[in-house]
Amino acid sequence: MDEREPVAGPGLLLVLRRGGAAALHEQLEQELREQVRSGRLQSGARLPSSRALAAELGISRGVVLEAYAQLTAEGYLTASQGAPTRVALLASGERERPPVAATSLGARLAHDFDPALPDLAAFPRTDWIRALRTVARDAPLAALGHGDPRGEPGLRDALMAYLARARGAAPEPEHTIVCAGFTQAFAVLCRTLRSRGIDRIAVEAPGYGQHRLVAEAAGLEPIEVAVDEDGLVVDALADSGCEVVVVTPAHQFPTGAVLSSERRAALIEWAEDEDTLIVEDDYDSELRYDRDAVGALQGLAPERVAHIGSVSKRLAPGVRLGWMLAPSWLSGAVTYEKAVADRGAPALDQLALAELIGRGDLDRHLRRMRLRYRTRREALMRAIERSLPGSRADGIAAGLFVPVMLPAFDERAAAAAGVGVHVVEAVGVGEGEDTTMLALGFGNLSERGIADGVAALARAAC
Amino acid sequence: MDEREPVAGPGLLLVLRRGGAAALHEQLEQELREQVRSGRLQSGARLPSSRALAAELGISRGVVLEAYAQLTAEGYLTASQGAPTRVALLASGERERPPVAATSLGARLAHDFDPALPDLAAFPRTDWIRALRTVARDAPLAALGHGDPRGEPGLRDALMAYLARARGAAPEPEHTIVCAGFTQAFAVLCRTLRSRGIDRIAVEAPGYGQHRLVAEAAGLEPIEVAVDEDGLVVDALADSGCEVVVVTPAHQFPTGAVLSSERRAALIEWAEDEDTLIVEDDYDSELRYDRDAVGALQGLAPERVAHIGSVSKRLAPGVRLGWMLAPSWLSGAVTYEKAVADRGAPALDQLALAELIGRGDLDRHLRRMRLRYRTRREALMRAIERSLPGSRADGIAAGLFVPVMLPAFDERAAAAAGVGVHVVEAVGVGEGEDTTMLALGFGNLSERGIADGVAALARAAC
Repeated sequence: MDEREPVAGPGLLLVLRRGGAAALHEQLEQELREQVRSGRLQSGARLPSSRALAAELGISRGVVLEAYAQLTAEGYLTASQGAPTRVALLASGERERPPVAATSLGARLAHDFDPALPDLAAFPRTDWIRALRTVARDAPLAALGHGDPRGEPGLRDALMAYLARARGAAPEPEHTIVCAGFTQAFAVLCRTLRSRGIDRIAVEAPGYGQHRLVAEAAGLEPIEVAVDEDGLVVDALADSGCEVVVVTPAHQFPTGAVLSSERRAALIEWAEDEDTLIVEDDYDSELRYDRDAVGALQGLAPERVAHIGSVSKRLAPGVRLGWMLAPSWLSGAVTYEKAVADRGAPALDQLALAELIGRGDLDRHLRRMRLRYRTRREALMRAIERSLPGSRADGIAAGLFVPVMLPAFDERAAAAAGVGVHVVEAVGVGEGEDTTMLALGFGNLSERGIADGVAALARAAC
Repeated sequence: MDEREPVAGPGLLLVLRRGGAAALHEQLEQELREQVRSGRLQSGARLPSSRALAAELGISRGVVLEAYAQLTAEGYLTASQGAPTRVALLASGERERPPVAATSLGARLAHDFDPALPDLAAFPRTDWIRALRTVARDAPLAALGHGDPRGEPGLRDALMAYLARARGAAPEPEHTIVCAGFTQAFAVLCRTLRSRGIDRIAVEAPGYGQHRLVAEAAGLEPIEVAVDEDGLVVDALADSGCEVVVVTPAHQFPTGAVLSSERRAALIEWAEDEDTLIVEDDYDSELRYDRDAVGALQGLAPERVAHIGSVSKRLAPGVRLGWMLAPSWLSGAVTYEKAVADRGAPALDQLALAELIGRGDLDRHLRRMRLRYRTRREALMRAIERSLPGSRADGIAAGLFVPVMLPAFDERAAAAAGVGVHVVEAVGVGEGEDTTMLALGFGNLSERGIADGVAALARAAC
């Protein structure tokens, strides 16, 4: 034995625990892997013979042989007939990972006016678990395998009845694709369009930032089209030359406008005349507090509209379930993209949602929440009037946010004071240079929290 | 009133139900929408006055006015001051949808040797629901909102401990991304690579068809690299000029080979020398029946390997949960692609899986299943020997399928006899021209089902 070559000798410092959860050979393997990875056992180093190591550790030689064989198969060690076992040349500590950067997901906010959040504490946990228990017991075995990439038939049927009733939509289970929330449905649709040669998509300005990000990730160029108090300016859309538009007709984000009936007609006429597609982002349409919600655009022109909705505002974003009602000519291509995206949504969650809809739990929950959100919205309107003189609150009595125009606003000061607000990037015409538009969310704040938050905002930043 | 213009008269045939679940105005709206869509109410047709319709239906005029106003806002009807209400010009039945093609998801198979399925009946429903109930009660509220796109910290921590122990991997929660099964993780990774300028990816031949389809959907060209009895031929990979390869080292699909220790070392050397990336598809590695599973390649070279695993074989595909251990230099980009793909996996499912791992339920389930699958695999080997003379069963004692070489095989006859088999497309060298390779799955069949199925296969198609 050459004294100069590195030897992983008695200094191996292996600690094995008898009677531990892991078998001795597994413990030994894990220890050795760790030492190779960390570089404590150097590349090329010779390991003690199985006999010597077994004696040192007071374990049987078979255990050591088993560990050596395992690590040789995995590439950590090398062994050839008659030669000593060594650390493999490649498994060196030199390739250690760079130090991990500490992640900060943002300091905890004292007041979070997130416009995208419903009341998370109101998520009907008991109903949800009851539904899951029922479907876990009754679900057909096939549902636990690789199902239809469009989603469980039971949910697509339930959605048909529900969306016809609650949204005036014209859903067909055949062309309904269950997705992981709005984002996935839109992402899958954008990729489908991209693969059909579409390269631009009209987005509302101001609009929902995710429209732009998701479209860009799919290789589509977002083209901004103006929004006014009647929603998307359809004449401007026609001038854009885009073949697709994504729009929030029931409650424009973030201006809070409703697409007027004239604009609805004009939008569909545009789609008919130009042979184009409308993507309807129907994110919070059922949360209307002054009257019935305006029905879905899709109901008017099912072959011209890809309608996307989700449970994110109805239940909670963390559930990650949504749906697309696709035009029949597009649904096959969308289904393929969904299949290669993730093969379909989780079966039990889908069936639980079908159960929640079928039992009327979802309707009951929404009725309860509409009352609660209405009260919270009114609390926010009062607080704005009281604490933010010179500001103007806009938008219809709907959804989970109020658009507010502020004559002066200091974004950094708000952040420093722990007040989280959504600042709208591109504000519509007719406002002063210094005007800032916020979309102030109220869904996940108590009435007290709303009043305190607006007061803090006024103190710090307005 | 011009007698020639179409009038939606008393022939409207509206059926409203008093005391039904929906309010009268909602019923009326729904009926009218349906009639406009179906073309029964023609474009431009004049509707009865609210007074006349109310009288005819025996309801209050306010209900009719409410319905008309709603449908006007939605674009189904038009109304201007003093003029009668009409069906909007665009909402015509001419744009009815084409008839829906009947979907056939394949006739039900009498014997389904699906190589991708675990025992679906063995899915631990009780454990899963118990875990869900626990986490639904205890989950932090924030988990129900928009969480970290990489996944819940609780699951990423649980996976770290689990994958280090069970797979000899070197996971870091920071660089672990929870995904909807293998497919999504691979799809997200392929899109990340494509956006970094990669345009080709080496795939095993024969290999897993989904590798090719998902890569192509992301815009990558799959380049075939041969597989032999030691797994991927690394020399051939080097010749391919690809910068990325996707490989199944622990149990090659569909040949059943294990990547030899020499090849493992050569593969990592290739990745180091060429500054390339290895994608490790670790789909069924824990199901090894003759010895301990070979540890993950990722443990040897965490900065060179993107390791992907899932619960699809461990629990059931319908759960749709998987994970990627990304190299640190790639994890930020992968996280962004995951965020624009669907903003993250469902929170409660993730936390339930963490609970299942933490309580040891997953380990117990896998111990039980290894015994069961081992018995089923032996039953399949016996049945092949008995019923398919001249055939050769290959592969290690692992996973959920056995690769079988058949001297003669009639695929259509098998399908006609209701026997579902996975025919391997590109078979390795050294076999006769007429040889067919099947990957016969046994995971979701009873011992009796296996014997009957192989007998039916032999009768019909061999």
